[in-house]
Amino acid sequence: MNPLPIPTNIVDDLQAVDARIIERVRSRAALIAAASSHILTSGGKRIRAAMTLLCAQLGQYQLAQVIHAAAAVEMIHAATLVHDDLIDDAERRRGKVTVHTRWDSGVALMVGDYLFALAAVEMSLAPDPRIIAFFSQAVMTICEGELSPVMVVAPLEQALVEYRYKTGCKTAALFEAGCKAGMAAGGGTAEQIERAGRFGYGVGMAFQIVDDVLDYTGDEQTLGKPAGGDLRQGTITLPLIYAAANPGGAHLAAVADAEHLSASQVDEVLAEVRRLRGAEQALAEAERYGREATTELRAFAPSQARAALEAIVRFALDRRG
Amino acid sequence: MNPLPIPTNIVDDLQAVDARIIERVRSRAALIAAASSHILTSGGKRIRAAMTLLCAQLGQYQLAQVIHAAAAVEMIHAATLVHDDLIDDAERRRGKVTVHTRWDSGVALMVGDYLFALAAVEMSLAPDPRIIAFFSQAVMTICEGELSPVMVVAPLEQALVEYRYKTGCKTAALFEAGCKAGMAAGGGTAEQIERAGRFGYGVGMAFQIVDDVLDYTGDEQTLGKPAGGDLRQGTITLPLIYAAANPGGAHLAAVADAEHLSASQVDEVLAEVRRLRGAEQALAEAERYGREATTELRAFAPSQARAALEAIVRFALDRRG
Repeated sequence: MNPLPIPTNIVDDLQAVDARIIERVRSRAALIAAASSHILTSGGKRIRAAMTLLCAQLGQYQLAQVIHAAAAVEMIHAATLVHDDLIDDAERRRGKVTVHTRWDSGVALMVGDYLFALAAVEMSLAPDPRIIAFFSQAVMTICEGELSPVMVVAPLEQALVEYRYKTGCKTAALFEAGCKAGMAAGGGTAEQIERAGRFGYGVGMAFQIVDDVLDYTGDEQTLGKPAGGDLRQGTITLPLIYAAANPGGAHLAAVADAEHLSASQVDEVLAEVRRLRGAEQALAEAERYGREATTELRAFAPSQARAALEAIVRFALDRRG
Repeated sequence: MNPLPIPTNIVDDLQAVDARIIERVRSRAALIAAASSHILTSGGKRIRAAMTLLCAQLGQYQLAQVIHAAAAVEMIHAATLVHDDLIDDAERRRGKVTVHTRWDSGVALMVGDYLFALAAVEMSLAPDPRIIAFFSQAVMTICEGELSPVMVVAPLEQALVEYRYKTGCKTAALFEAGCKAGMAAGGGTAEQIERAGRFGYGVGMAFQIVDDVLDYTGDEQTLGKPAGGDLRQGTITLPLIYAAANPGGAHLAAVADAEHLSASQVDEVLAEVRRLRGAEQALAEAERYGREATTELRAFAPSQARAALEAIVRFALDRRG
């Protein structure tokens, strides 16, 4: 996995966020401490925390004001990963075994709940009730997205609506909340907070689309998991949707109705999506979201923080794992 | 199930809390709305919300100050029930089918997460960061308790330590947090808040012990589920622990090592615990917790609210279902 290019202006502060997270996941219950550390030290890029810090730097930056929000966004992200893996019954994430596989589903359920609550305690230390509202509403939105699968591959318009709704809920909402929280901690105006939120939303959409593309174009070594995982799970994503809408791709619509795809069927669909250039069209959509996000930044004066946020957009778009 | 005798001074306000809860569980995701309503309207007594309101009445009472905490405590309680039923794979609660049985485990997982987040949004509207900290720490404690089962029936001292720890975490901590939040919303001093917390903790311990006793002495009609459920789940509770420590009860210690009890073994253990009067000793312990709780109330001037809280202690101890 490519490491996130950490902007020099937040290297130390991002380490302080990391140290705080590790310090906070201690628990009287040994299982919770072990499983929380497992997920929170499993090679995440801390991209959400970095964006929260940098959005605070667009305003009046003080680490003490924003560290709780930056720690909370990563705790919430970790909680959603543990519960998401449990629902999908995924065996591995980033090459490491998942919590419910290493321990059991009860542990995974409780560790997720624990991390959500830990994030809330963390936010109670940053006494801006807006920050708690941003993150809590994001969690509600994530839950709604989790229960709103993409049901069709075609017709294109319907599939796009469903895919964008789900991706907006499951991924972009938390990026949005983290950026709003950062801007709020930086003393931004209501308008600046909304703008930071739209920036975060766009980056989140781009980030997830690239993730979904990599599941079609990546290999096991860079992904930390085999390609085609979404297809095996029955998850319909953007490369498949675009491929099916291209001339000669109509037969791919049947994937939506398949109860289960065999290994050879998965390979066949992967090959067809590549042949029909679905990944390229999906990437073009990610680029559009990235451009929209970058446009939001223009309202802020040029600064090291703004440049670093622009670099993160590029990172989200260009990563290969 | 006996209805909670609603103190006249909070009848209207408890209805306002109830209305607020029902209004808030709406969701864009139909599944979440349906499953949230299912659990939040399934015959709960709202005892936690009532205690939160009444603790606020020990101070300077304003419904607008405390309604968010009172709604939040019930939302958190509902969330923990859904996740607890999922871990235990329980089919029914209060006679109604559980969320993961009626829908599926993914829905139950997400609905619990959603209700936790909804509670946090609710608390963000009562901008006292202490209240968020009380409830979030309680949720962390509940998770720790969920993963700390009672492992032994004997020796008595060890079994009591494990049982009291687990019960303190899983049940009493949320009663404690609700009472602290109520007292804080009522403008109480730090000392009064701690005192209200100890009151809530004692009521929670008494409440859970009575619950555990009813699982040995109750019948399906009043319980809404068959008796002996804890034994079938392999859960060791206080009546069994005391029975095993009485002369002629040593053979019951083996229950801790049984992989699975057959229906006839469950009936046998139930009969033995009754014969050895384990339930009576457990109830005496519940009475002690109730007395300790009532003692904490003496520091407050006599009032309708104080009398109502005393009546709730009695209700917790005397209920039969």
